[in-house]
This record gives sequence, C-alpha cells and structure tokens, in this order.
Amino acid sequence: MKPSVGIIMGSQSDLPIMAEAAQFLEELGVGYELTVVSAHRTPRRMIDYAESARERGIKVIVAGAGGAAHLPGMVASLTSLPVIGVPIKSSNSIDGWDSILSILQMPSGIPVATVALNGGKNAGILAASIVGAFNSEVGSKMDQFKTTLREKVEDSALQIEEKGWRKILNK
Amino acid sequence: MKPSVGIIMGSQSDLPIMAEAAQFLEELGVGYELTVVSAHRTPRRMIDYAESARERGIKVIVAGAGGAAHLPGMVASLTSLPVIGVPIKSSNSIDGWDSILSILQMPSGIPVATVALNGGKNAGILAASIVGAFNSEVGSKMDQFKTTLREKVEDSALQIEEKGWRKILNK
Amino acid sequence: MKPSVGIIMGSQSDLPIMAEAAQFLEELGVGYELTVVSAHRTPRRMIDYAESARERGIKVIVAGAGGAAHLPGMVASLTSLPVIGVPIKSSNSIDGWDSILSILQMPSGIPVATVALNGGKNAGILAASIVGAFNSEVGSKMDQFKTTLREKVEDSALQIEEKGWRKILNK
Amino acid sequence: MKPSVGIIMGSQSDLPIMAEAAQFLEELGVGYELTVVSAHRTPRRMIDYAESARERGIKVIVAGAGGAAHLPGMVASLTSLPVIGVPIKSSNSIDGWDSILSILQMPSGIPVATVALNGGKNAGILAASIVGAFNSEVGSKMDQFKTTLREKVEDSALQIEEKGWRKILNK
Amino acid sequence: MKPSVGIIMGSQSDLPIMAEAAQFLEELGVGYELTVVSAHRTPRRMIDYAESARERGIKVIVAGAGGAAHLPGMVASLTSLPVIGVPIKSSNSIDGWDSILSILQMPSGIPVATVALNGGKNAGILAASIVGAFNSEVGSKMDQFKTTLREKVEDSALQIEEKGWRKILNK
Amino acid sequence: MKPSVGIIMGSQSDLPIMAEAAQFLEELGVGYELTVVSAHRTPRRMIDYAESARERGIKVIVAGAGGAAHLPGMVASLTSLPVIGVPIKSSNSIDGWDSILSILQMPSGIPVATVALNGGKNAGILAASIVGAFNSEVGSKMDQFKTTLREKVEDSALQIEEKGWRKILNK
Amino acid sequence: MKPSVGIIMGSQSDLPIMAEAAQFLEELGVGYELTVVSAHRTPRRMIDYAESARERGIKVIVAGAGGAAHLPGMVASLTSLPVIGVPIKSSNSIDGWDSILSILQMPSGIPVATVALNGGKNAGILAASIVGAFNSEVGSKMDQFKTTLREKVEDSALQIEEKGWRKILNK
Amino acid sequence: MKPSVGIIMGSQSDLPIMAEAAQFLEELGVGYELTVVSAHRTPRRMIDYAESARERGIKVIVAGAGGAAHLPGMVASLTSLPVIGVPIKSSNSIDGWDSILSILQMPSGIPVATVALNGGKNAGILAASIVGAFNSEVGSKMDQFKTTLREKVEDSALQIEEKGWRKILNK
Repeated sequence: MKPSVGIIMGSQSDLPIMAEAAQFLEELGVGYELTVVSAHRTPRRMIDYAESARERGIKVIVAGAGGAAHLPGMVASLTSLPVIGVPIKSSNSIDGWDSILSILQMPSGIPVATVALNGGKNAGILAASIVGAFNSEVGSKMDQFKTTLREKVEDSALQIEEKGWRKILNK
Repeated sequence: MKPSVGIIMGSQSDLPIMAEAAQFLEELGVGYELTVVSAHRTPRRMIDYAESARERGIKVIVAGAGGAAHLPGMVASLTSLPVIGVPIKSSNSIDGWDSILSILQMPSGIPVATVALNGGKNAGILAASIVGAFNSEVGSKMDQFKTTLREKVEDSALQIEEKGWRKILNK
Repeated sequence: MKPSVGIIMGSQSDLPIMAEAAQFLEELGVGYELTVVSAHRTPRRMIDYAESARERGIKVIVAGAGGAAHLPGMVASLTSLPVIGVPIKSSNSIDGWDSILSILQMPSGIPVATVALNGGKNAGILAASIVGAFNSEVGSKMDQFKTTLREKVEDSALQIEEKGWRKILNK
Repeated sequence: MKPSVGIIMGSQSDLPIMAEAAQFLEELGVGYELTVVSAHRTPRRMIDYAESARERGIKVIVAGAGGAAHLPGMVASLTSLPVIGVPIKSSNSIDGWDSILSILQMPSGIPVATVALNGGKNAGILAASIVGAFNSEVGSKMDQFKTTLREKVEDSALQIEEKGWRKILNK
Repeated sequence: MKPSVGIIMGSQSDLPIMAEAAQFLEELGVGYELTVVSAHRTPRRMIDYAESARERGIKVIVAGAGGAAHLPGMVASLTSLPVIGVPIKSSNSIDGWDSILSILQMPSGIPVATVALNGGKNAGILAASIVGAFNSEVGSKMDQFKTTLREKVEDSALQIEEKGWRKILNK
Repeated sequence: MKPSVGIIMGSQSDLPIMAEAAQFLEELGVGYELTVVSAHRTPRRMIDYAESARERGIKVIVAGAGGAAHLPGMVASLTSLPVIGVPIKSSNSIDGWDSILSILQMPSGIPVATVALNGGKNAGILAASIVGAFNSEVGSKMDQFKTTLREKVEDSALQIEEKGWRKILNK
Repeated sequence: MKPSVGIIMGSQSDLPIMAEAAQFLEELGVGYELTVVSAHRTPRRMIDYAESARERGIKVIVAGAGGAAHLPGMVASLTSLPVIGVPIKSSNSIDGWDSILSILQMPSGIPVATVALNGGKNAGILAASIVGAFNSEVGSKMDQFKTTLREKVEDSALQIEEKGWRKILNK
Repeated sequence: MKPSVGIIMGSQSDLPIMAEAAQFLEELGVGYELTVVSAHRTPRRMIDYAESARERGIKVIVAGAGGAAHLPGMVASLTSLPVIGVPIKSSNSIDGWDSILSILQMPSGIPVATVALNGGKNAGILAASIVGAFNSEVGSKMDQFKTTLREKVEDSALQIEEKGWRKILNK
C-alpha cells in the first residue's frame, strides 16, 4: 500500500512514542512510512525528505521531537503539506514544556498541528482523520473507532454500577 | 462556493483572531462558513453543529476559545473530522496558559490539532494545507504562498544590507 | 438512602482518587451515586446525566478528570446544580497544571467549584458541607469531623513534646 | 431579606471584583451581607466572623483575596459551612499564580471551592446554585439565567451569520 | 536552656525537614522548642502559640508547611516577632510552587522571611544568624560555621586536583 | 543615630522599591544606611561592604536585586549576619520569576530571608521586627504598627457596612 | 574592517534588540555583518549563510529569534562555529518562555550559547569577549569596558550617599 | 598540554555532569583544568580563580551550578573572558527552573553563555567550538565531530527502514 502518511522522529529513542502512530494507521489500513530524520544532526536529509514528500504521494507528515524540538517546525517550513507535531518528554526535556512550546508557538505563516505531550497515538488518529475527511472508507473506520471508544466507557460504567466501586477498586 | 472549512468560536469577542482564518481562506479561494458556537452556553447547538458537519461537506473544523477552552476538544469528541484548535488569550485567561493546555492536552483517542496562542491566521493556513493536500489547485496556491513569505524576507534582508541597519531602524 | 450527591469521573483510572469522595460521604451518612461518564468519549451520556440530575434528587455533582479536563465544566454547562471539579494528575497530565487550569478557569456564567489536585476526599467533604448547610444532622457531623481533625493534631503535638522529636522521627 | 450568603474580602481594593458577586445575588433575590475581613490584619475579627456564620443563618461564605491569599482557607478552617474562594490578581500578585495556588491547594480535610482568577461573578453564581439546589424558587431563577446565557450566544451567532463577520468586526 | 527559637510545623509529616533546623540550633547551642501547630486544623492553638511567644522569651519563630501553606503567614499576622517560613514539598504540593508562593507572597505589612524549598536546615541557620547578630557568642559560632563550609569545599577541590576527577567520579 | 540596618541594591533603578524599607525604618526610629552595591559590576565593593558590616554595628542587611539576582546571596556568603533579600521585578526580569528563584533557592548553609516580589516595605518591616525582638522599644513600636494595620481594616469594614458597597465603589 | 562576527535575526522586527549587539561591536572596534535570515521562511538562505560563515572569516554567529525560535539552533547544526542565541520576546511569544526554551534546550551535540531574554547587547558583549580571548587588543578594550561598568555604579553610590536617597528619588 | 579551558563547579556533587565537558575536550585534544570553586562557600577562592584566568592562558571558563546558581554569573563579573554556564538540576533545585533562570538572566553588561539543563557535554562542545574558531586544527576536529553525529542518525534511519520499526522497538 502506497504510503499517504510520513512518520519521522528526531532520534531512535523517540520510537516507543512514535510507533503508536504507526500502529494506529495500520489498524485503520492507512499506508505510512516511518524513519529517523534529525533537524540538528541531518539537516540536509530533513530538507530532502520534506521537499520530496508531496511528489511521493504523502498527504500528511507526523514529526516527533523533544527538548528544543525543531523538526516539526522546520519540516513545516519546507513543505506546504500539513505537519503534525508530537512534543516528546525526552530525557533532556524540562517536564515537556520546552518540547511543547518549541513545536506549538510557530510564527505566522508556518503552522504545526500540535498534539498532546507524548501523544504519538493521537498524532496517528489526527493523520487518519485528515485522510478520512477525503476518503470515505477511512472516514467510516474513524466513525467506528469513535463508537468503540464510547462502548468501552459505557461498559466500564456498567461494571462499576453493577459491581460497586469497591470491587472494581480492589481488583 | 460550498464551504469545506467550518470556523467557529466560543464568543463574538474571539472574532478579531478568528477572522484572520477566514481572511486567509478567502485569499486562497477555499470556501468556509463562520459562526459562534459556545460549548458552555449552547451545548446542544455545538452538538448539532459538530454532528452534521461531515454530511454538510465540511472537511476541517477550526475552533477558537480562551480560558478553560472546551470548544475544540468537545467538537473533536462529536465528529471524526480533523479539528484545529486556536487557544485565545482572552480577558479571563492567565497569560494564555489555560487556553493552550485545555486545548492541547486532549486524552488518547480525541486529538485536537493545536496552533500557537492567538494563531487565527495559522489555523486558516493549516486548514488550507489540509485541503491542499488533496486538491492540487489549493496545493499550488499554498506553494505560492510559501514563495511570497520567502520573498518578503529576502527583500527585507536586501534593504538592511544595502541601506545599513541604522537607516532601517530609524524609519 | 436516596443519593443527594452524584460522583462521576472521566475514566475508570480516576477511581482511586474519586473513591475517597464516596468513602467520606458514606462515613457521614450522605447518600451518593458513582459512575463513569466521559465528556470526550460519551458526550450524549454526559448530557443525559447532567440534565436529569436535579429531577433525580441530586443536590451536588462531583466530577473528576485529568489532562484537558472538560467533564466538570461541561456538566456545569448542562445543569444549574453546583458542580465540584477534581483535577486529577493522570498519566497524560503535565504535572497537573493542565488538569487544574482546564477545570478552574471557567468563563463568566459557568463556575466550577474546584478543589486541590487529586483532592477526591476534599471534594467529598465540600459536597457534605453543602448538604450540611441545609441539613442540620449532616451539619453536626461536619462539626464533629472538624473536631476530630483538631484532636489528631493536638495528640500529635503532645507526643512530640513529651517524647521529643528524635524518638518520633526514628519510629 | 435575611442574608444566606456572606461575602468577605481581604481588602477594600478587592471590592470591584467582589461586588460582582453581590450584584448577581441581588438580581436573583438571594440575601447577602458584604464586608471587609483580613486574615493577616484582623485575625480575631476573621475568627468571630467565621465561627458565628452558621448561627446567623449564613449557608455559604464567599471570600476573595490576592497574593499569599489565606482568607478563604482560614475561614474554611473555622467553619463547616461551604467556603467559595475567589483568587484576585491584586497589585502584589505574580500574574495571579500565587492567589490561585494559595487558595486552591488546601490540605486534606479543609476544602475551598475555588473559582477562576478574578471570578467574583462566578462566585456569586456558584453561591446561588448552592442555595438553589435546596430552594426551588432560586433553582428556577438559575435555570432562567442559563437560558439567558444561551439566548445571547444564539443571537450573536444569528447576527454574524446574517450580516457577515466583516460588518460585525468593523462595528 | 531557655528556648529563644520556636520551631513549629503544620503536620508531623513535616518533621524530617524541620528537624534539621532543630539539629543545627543544638549544634550551635541555641535553645529552641519544637511542636506541631496547624493553621487549618488547630487555629486557636496557633493563635495562643503566636500571641504568647514574645512573653515566653522567643526571639524568632520558624514555621514550616506545604501546599496552600498558611501557617507561617498566619503566625506572622499574630506576632511582631520575625517569622521564618519553610516551604515544604509535601505530598499534596504541586512541585513545591504552591508552598513557596503561599508563604513568600505575603501582603504589605506582614512579611515572612522565606527560605528555599525544603530548607529546614537553612531556616535553622537563619534563626541562629538572627540570634548571633545580638549575641556575640552565637555570632562567633556562626563565623566558625562559615569557615567549616569553606574548608570542606577547599578540601574537596584539593582532592579533585590531586587525584584527578576520574578517581573521584568512580569512587 | 548609628545604623543597625544596611540597605543595599544592585542598581539605582531599584531605589523606588528599596526606599520603602528606609522610609519604614525611619518611621520606627531604627537607624539605617543606604547605598548602591552591585554584585556583578562592583564585586570588590560588595565584599568590603559585607565583610565590614558586623564590626560597623550592622545587625541586618537588606539587599534588593532583579533578574539573575546574585547580590543578596553573595552578601549572605560573605557575612554571618542575617540577610533579607528583595526580589525586584526589574525591566530585564521575566515577570519576576528569575528574581525570586535566584534569591530564594540558596544552597544549604547560606540562607537568604526572602520577602515578596517588590517587597521593599516588607523588608523594612522584617528588619525592624528582628531589631525589635532584642530591643523592647522597637518591639513596642512594632506592636503599635500591627494595631494600626488592624484599625485601618476595621475602619474600612465599618464604612462599607454603613454606607453600602455601591457608595464606596463609586467614590 | 573584515567582519569576524555575523549578526542575523529571524525578522526585521527583531532589529531594535539585535542592533544593540552591532552597536557594542562597533564601539569595541570588532568587525561585524548584519542581515535578516529566517529559519522558517528562507531555510535555504539560512543553510548558505551558516555553511559559508567559517570560510568568510566569521568567528562567532549571533542569532536572534522569538516564539518557537529555531534560527539559533538550526544555524548551530549547520556550522561548527560558536553560535550565540538571543531569545526575543516578540509579539507572538508567551512572556518569552517559548523563545528561551526553544533556544536553550538544544540536544546533546549541538549547543547554543544562550543569553538573557532580549539580551541583544549582552550577545554583542559575549561575542566580543570570545574575540577578545584570542585578540589582546579587543581583550584590553573588554577590560576597560568592565572598568566603566564599575565606575558608573561607584559614581551612583557616591551620589546617593552624599545627597541622600530622597533627593535622588525625587529627581 | 597547557589548559585553555577552565572547568569549575560549585560542588563535588556536580562532577558527573561536568566531567562530560572534560571528557569531550580530551577527545578533541583541547587542554583543560578542572576543580571545585563555590561562589557561596569560597568567595575569595572564586575571585582568585577568575581574576588570574586570563594570565594563566585560559581562553574560556565553563562553570556549572544548581539552585540559586551564582557561580557562572559571579565569575563572569570578575573576568572579561567568555564564561559558559551549565544549569544543574541538583537535589535542591525546583525542576531546574531556578538553576536556568539564575544563570541565564544576567543583567546588561555581564553575559553568561548558558547551555541546556545538565548540558555538561554541550558546554564542552561549545568551549571547543570557541577554541576551534581561532585554531584550525581544533576547528577541523569539530567538523569531524559533526560528521559523526550525522552518520549515527543516518545509520539509525537505515536500520529502521531495513528491519522495520517493530524489530528495533523489541530489541
């Protein structure tokens, strides 16, 4: 399946978070590619990646990075495709504040669609919702996904109401 | 032109920020609709808006709100379309931190594509880039927009280098 | 005993915190109900819960949630009963700041009575004090509860003064 | 009308914020009293006020203070009535963070129902909703108040949709 | 030895931090007393303690508390003796910010001499330096204490320079 | 009158804040000296000032500075007299956070008695309370000062209660 | 004079801050060049600038930017010359926190020498001190600059001591 | 080899972080010296160190400290050599914010080249880049270091692309 989502991260240590995006896209049957691209260590590789993305058929780029996280914003400066940024609470981050602010607070003209701290899965869901806005098959699967979320909560509520909270708490 | 982007805001006082999104979409020839929907004051209106968006042909929703800003996240819970959130530094906000965190930090399953504080224009650009990923005409205009951004900086650099910074500073 | 306090939470993972509210209300003999209601995953369930609360005899709603915590505020928008919000430092929260700000900073017109981070027990005490303001039996028990708090501190002080701090510290 | 809500503030300079609570209670026909009580400058007056409140018929106390704001928490330690705290962004406050945290983060056993920064009006609404949970006349007025909030937003939306956002923005 | 420093804390759980103040005063031969006094749970005990301190011969009060920490400020409002406040990062504190701000940001007229987060030992040193400013024997011991601090660093420097940092690091 | 309090500041621009300390000490009849000493621009002058303070009869040093505020801590490292630090929200400060943290968070062994942001007057009051703990004349004046604070609040309360808050608010 | 310091900024609006660096270098007789280079709007221009800097004789690059400020870090990734970063509190910045963190918190391997918020002049001084470490003429001028700083403070102190603080304050 | 970089730290407990600077300089063949100097415990030793640095041939000083970290700024006030500051998240630091702000936010005239929290290695790299700007041999080694950084990322990317992310993740 030809990839329509490109997933990149600044370092292999970001993989546990970013793999959640890949996992979700697989479950929804949305094609993706995944690799490591560092804004600070491989700037030319980043440029090649970003500038060739549209012609390779990519529709959305998901980029994760931590600390002074420049990858999502720099990629957004190099392509006019939508870029989703995942702030990662990496070991050199100050409780994640640096990751969030250096991805979110982009200047006028170059937005990054930022998701929650360590929100790899949410980035995958957002990418799928973008694809699903224009592809009815993916759109239907997204609706089913929302139904599943709801049913899980309803089931959880039913159990607490039936068994009482003490039993659930002591499980 | 049939709207493909829905722009909503929690209060009419958010209009100066959110109008920048509308303005950009007009310049790019992307159809949009704009209205006021409050999560806290008109919850049923919000539900109707969000649940009917896909069938009305909307591809992306842009939602702005300030303080304990629940509109973008609640709309994202009611549709599987992509939702862009604009944190607004309204008069009841603590330097914008509440607006940012209550839009950005959505739980797993329900992402909001958050842009910078008061980033109304960037929300419009992000919405256009999403439409442009699947519509080559809009995609081309996005590329031209990026070229214009670049040329303005190059022109500014040329002037400083030729005239010297003192002249520019004292203008 | 007919419930006069409704305790809800966004996710079953919030139960250890919210059970403290239930525990306290039981000790004071105040009737309550407890279940899971998610603003983002079961929005319609939330609406039904909030809109039917007054006619079911509920006097106060206690709602706990973490991260971009919308449940307390959304419930407050759907009922004119008092709503107590418990910010929870859940796994996807940034040190609790997002939970606090997205519950506390409600816009004019829709207050949420916010308690301390992870303050499940304090939410139960606040709910009981509201019931106790209008019900003299519960009011008396609240006064006794305050006396117990005082006596524990006085006992602790007596022990330190009599035995010396070194003995207490090395226990 | 016998007061059922007691409004106090640490300093006369807090009056512009706290008067909004009084104003709202008047509109709803809920009796109140209003005065200045300082935790730091008149500690004995504070004790007398708090300890006599229940027997004077008060059901809820609304207390506003700024900076290292101890009034709401100290009053809550001296009565078992519910206490609503209003963090005030006074001149000696650090952007309101000190006011919020020193009111919100009360220890286990002594909750304060905290509202948004400078939320004097919201404190009045919360006090009225507490009274209205046990008094059906006030409860009905609270429901009417919520209807008014909704109608204002709907009217604002109608105007934007009919006249277009440019006309509204340029008013 | 008659106590000239009074050490109090809001809860016995603060003892590990506050015992460091007692320990230092013992080493310097400055008399002290130590007990538990809670602003929120034993307000009358707090008043008695603070108002009788001067006539009991106390010169300085050291008060530690965490979260919405009102003890140091309330004691300062009840005596004109100097009060040293120790912000404690207790279990219900948000990384210590609430403890610091609710002790430090006292209003004009009622200062608290605030030391670093968990700075029990520094509070003891500050109390001793106050006594030592008026008592030459204690003052001399304070000078010796400073000399010891210096010598420890010089010794540490000597070892690193002689042995090389690798040996010290691998110890 | 021989000075017992030394007031210093890092820059003449801090004078409006620090003059409040001098003003208060004058009112209480406590002798003081006031000058400019910069940790960063006149380090040797700072050393001379701090090391000679005790023999010149100084009992307490009050030091104000902003931004990366090193003056209070460095002076505390050079004398065993008590040092009161005043964090100043100077033009190069980030909302005062840098001033507060670089004065408050001193390492073990070298405390600074920190007061509220811009708390020049409170520093003067704290210095006077230290002198007053050992000098009964100053101690009495401190008690009178506290009485005045109380009476002002009581008078303010009386006016609001008698005239009604609307009249006071519209003054 | 051949430039040894390259001053760049992300936008012409940063010129008032960055001109202070240029001004200082001129006063010290250190050659510099100054222009506009945007990481997000002119990424290729940034690469050309950074990669050619060493061969053009540049020894230090000073880069200023605000918000999600990527220019200093990206330039540091493209050259092995030292890069000084100036966080600018631009209009789209959250009190400067985003500017600081996205420049300071660079990952291991790619440091940026960060100076204070809006520290354009300090960046110039730091650049001059780097040049002056290897160029004795510039080094001497740096020593003279420090002497001037000291003399200004001493003069200011003398005036306050001679005239009294009231006269200085009322000027 | 004669040292051209001086590495100092406020306490031996900072050695694990600061040793990374030494390690890097060794690998690049840049001479250095390393010792302990405390601003607060050995102020005179600090003065001697800083004032003699230039004549001993030192070109750059690297200073690490935590909490109210005064060492880098005080050393910068005592020499006109460039000073690199390393904020250390020591045990008495509030998540590193105090360390960062008290090093970064130096007043006009006295810059400190601040690196990321715990950025000992980055301080070493920055010091080497300063030496390398004037010494072509060190400059070449810096270029090689950057090449190595790039190659490691490229290798990591190759492995993920060839083996698939699941294999890498489960290693």
